[in-house]
Amino acid sequence: MTNAVDRERALARVRALRPRYEAALRELLEIPSISSDPARRTDIRRCGEAAARLIRDFGGRARLIETPGNPVVVGDLGEAGSPAVTFYNHLDVQPAGGPEWTRPPFQFNEVDGRYFGRGATDDKGPALAALFGAAIAIEAGVRVRARFCWELEEEIGSPNFAAFLTKHARDLECRCVVVSDTIWISKDRPAIPYALRGMQTALLKLESAANDTHSGDTGGVVKNPISELCDVVAKCVDAKTGRVLIPGFYDDVVEATPAELDSFESSGFDLSQFRAAYALKRLYHSDARSVLRAMWARPTFEVHGIAGGFQGPGIMAIVPPRAEAKVSMRLVPNQDPGKIALLLRAHLKHLNPDLDIIINEGLAPYSAPFTGPHAAAARECYQFGFGASPALVREGGSIGPAQPLSTSLRVPIMFLGLSLPEHGYHAPNENFDWRQASGGMLSFAKFLELATDIR
Amino acid sequence: MTNAVDRERALARVRALRPRYEAALRELLEIPSISSDPARRTDIRRCGEAAARLIRDFGGRARLIETPGNPVVVGDLGEAGSPAVTFYNHLDVQPAGGPEWTRPPFQFNEVDGRYFGRGATDDKGPALAALFGAAIAIEAGVRVRARFCWELEEEIGSPNFAAFLTKHARDLECRCVVVSDTIWISKDRPAIPYALRGMQTALLKLESAANDTHSGDTGGVVKNPISELCDVVAKCVDAKTGRVLIPGFYDDVVEATPAELDSFESSGFDLSQFRAAYALKRLYHSDARSVLRAMWARPTFEVHGIAGGFQGPGIMAIVPPRAEAKVSMRLVPNQDPGKIALLLRAHLKHLNPDLDIIINEGLAPYSAPFTGPHAAAARECYQFGFGASPALVREGGSIGPAQPLSTSLRVPIMFLGLSLPEHGYHAPNENFDWRQASGGMLSFAKFLELATDIR
Repeated sequence: MTNAVDRERALARVRALRPRYEAALRELLEIPSISSDPARRTDIRRCGEAAARLIRDFGGRARLIETPGNPVVVGDLGEAGSPAVTFYNHLDVQPAGGPEWTRPPFQFNEVDGRYFGRGATDDKGPALAALFGAAIAIEAGVRVRARFCWELEEEIGSPNFAAFLTKHARDLECRCVVVSDTIWISKDRPAIPYALRGMQTALLKLESAANDTHSGDTGGVVKNPISELCDVVAKCVDAKTGRVLIPGFYDDVVEATPAELDSFESSGFDLSQFRAAYALKRLYHSDARSVLRAMWARPTFEVHGIAGGFQGPGIMAIVPPRAEAKVSMRLVPNQDPGKIALLLRAHLKHLNPDLDIIINEGLAPYSAPFTGPHAAAARECYQFGFGASPALVREGGSIGPAQPLSTSLRVPIMFLGLSLPEHGYHAPNENFDWRQASGGMLSFAKFLELATDIR
Repeated sequence: MTNAVDRERALARVRALRPRYEAALRELLEIPSISSDPARRTDIRRCGEAAARLIRDFGGRARLIETPGNPVVVGDLGEAGSPAVTFYNHLDVQPAGGPEWTRPPFQFNEVDGRYFGRGATDDKGPALAALFGAAIAIEAGVRVRARFCWELEEEIGSPNFAAFLTKHARDLECRCVVVSDTIWISKDRPAIPYALRGMQTALLKLESAANDTHSGDTGGVVKNPISELCDVVAKCVDAKTGRVLIPGFYDDVVEATPAELDSFESSGFDLSQFRAAYALKRLYHSDARSVLRAMWARPTFEVHGIAGGFQGPGIMAIVPPRAEAKVSMRLVPNQDPGKIALLLRAHLKHLNPDLDIIINEGLAPYSAPFTGPHAAAARECYQFGFGASPALVREGGSIGPAQPLSTSLRVPIMFLGLSLPEHGYHAPNENFDWRQASGGMLSFAKFLELATDIR
């Protein structure tokens, strides 16, 4: 039996820790740990070492475990032998920059309790909230061993995480895993997703010449790789509806039940708030139910970027020599990334045999039944931290490590996120805020107390 | 009656003028007179003033005439009252830069008689060859007034040239116009085109949100403007064949006759040399006759550039907020740019009503019968300058001023070009060479002599 976390005392402690939390977040945010950029290897390691130091500053143990890619920070707080709970977070971030950022993306800026910087909400802010919450629980007398597993290549699809877990599962042995890397539906109500979309990404390239040529000389003669790439994309996805056109793509999809759709609709989702939060102008669907189904329970084919030819002002009358598109498919439960990759490759080769196709490692979708004592503890902890009961939803994003954590540790996984739609997840002007950080600390402290009681 | 240009004496003069030609070319090349870039306005004017000075240095008169856009350099050499021939060239250039340029594009570099730099062959080198050729003819006693009309916005479609000509036609009064802005089929044989393709350009834009959003959150929900743009492009042109899919597009096309195609084939065109010169890898057609037909006598729909979403290394899982394509249609005789613009707009609006369409001023195609004394003079002058008889061909490119010159001056227009396929017209590492410059000077000097004899 463990001590209970007292709300008033915990809250006082959270407030006292605020300057320390902000200093820690500043330190991590100002390291551009962009995992997709090979030039950032040193920053990645520096970020891992800084994070390990933050665990040690609370009296914990922490080290970097090497993988063939980026290292993983593994640490813990609390007494050895106590029941363990493992927090999974990641400290690598998306690229950032461009005119839409109103402040330098790797400079910490606090404005009225809001923390700006790439990685603030995804996922450095939540990672630190978990660390601080665990420290508060342990100070309050909760007999728990809080473990931390902080990955540094989640944003590139966790290519080494499954192998890492297979080798180091014992270091992360626990009663349950808390993954804090998901987004609420609205700031007014916590949300617990019980299923995640998977992802399969690919790079498509075409080349028809070595250099730019003048379209007066070669137009109509040399193949235009942009037109060819457009043709390929147009035959992979119906641009009017978003429906994927790859033969066999939907074969294994398990559709959301009407009951699930009802539950999605009662999650607090508001279509006009959603449009406003993401500043969306044109959608495939006009009602909340269809939007939620598309977002959480249907697969996609998206083009993330396309490039080719002249990019300057005005018109330059060239036939471009090459074009490139970065695409991905979000996958839903029962779709297999390996099978989808094969279907994609076959379809692309059929569409254009000249296409150069690079298919990356896929991420399986994840789904779990949401019942039992851990689920009850998850619900109670949000009520404790935020004074509101959480909604049961799905997550449209992909959390690469979910499937390997489940496979290796064989314990329940709780997705206890703190991010809000207005935090600009993967977007310019990413931010986190003190309300979510402080509520998160309280929630995690409470979750640790409740989780240790589960037999 | 005028003096005849003696080949030996003219050749000696050409050789003596070489350092002066190279200095003049260096001066013009090193001014980045990029007409598509509004930031280059000052350079445009500087280039015009430098060019006027070069005409005056030969004892001629020259001034800049203002238009609502860039000024036009108007000058002349030789005695007032003599029969006049007007040389049309342009001194503005395409944008330049990027990793394929092995030398700074706006730095003059001479390597073994080859002159590197943006604008070398298009069209500063030929413009100066005309000036030097005229000076040589006049020195040799040819009683001619050589007029120069050097435009500074040809690369952006000559938006003010027709109006300029209407106002200043008297300053350019002449017996015929020489336009030197076309490319030979191979360096072994001069080529005289008798028809040019026209051009209609457009900018297509789509926007579905204000910012990047995370495709886990919005994928399948917000419209993907890249996919939408790909769909539009795929429905404007058949990527496999290059055939334009805009309804009505081919209605007014006058097809090349079998006799014309025969003449194209006997022009010295060699498909494998053509492929090698432009470093082309994949073509729509595999035989010379089809290639020549596509290049000179068929209209096109080309995408010059496409941009949208993430452009960095790796994958960034965003739904992009906007996408943009720069497109053009090359038009052949009897197609009307205004009508084609209407067909395009109607088709695009039908394909996607959300599309933001900017259609620029079109250029009409141009064609002329190729008979009579000016044609004979053109043939003879190339024989004189290069020792080879020219081939009668068409030109796949568009020379904006051809139509207005014809309309305003009501005299024959001769397309006496000096550019070679290997000069990298509109491409990286653009260059010109002394063989073409010196042969051009001789040819133009001879042309002036012959033209003054025509009643």
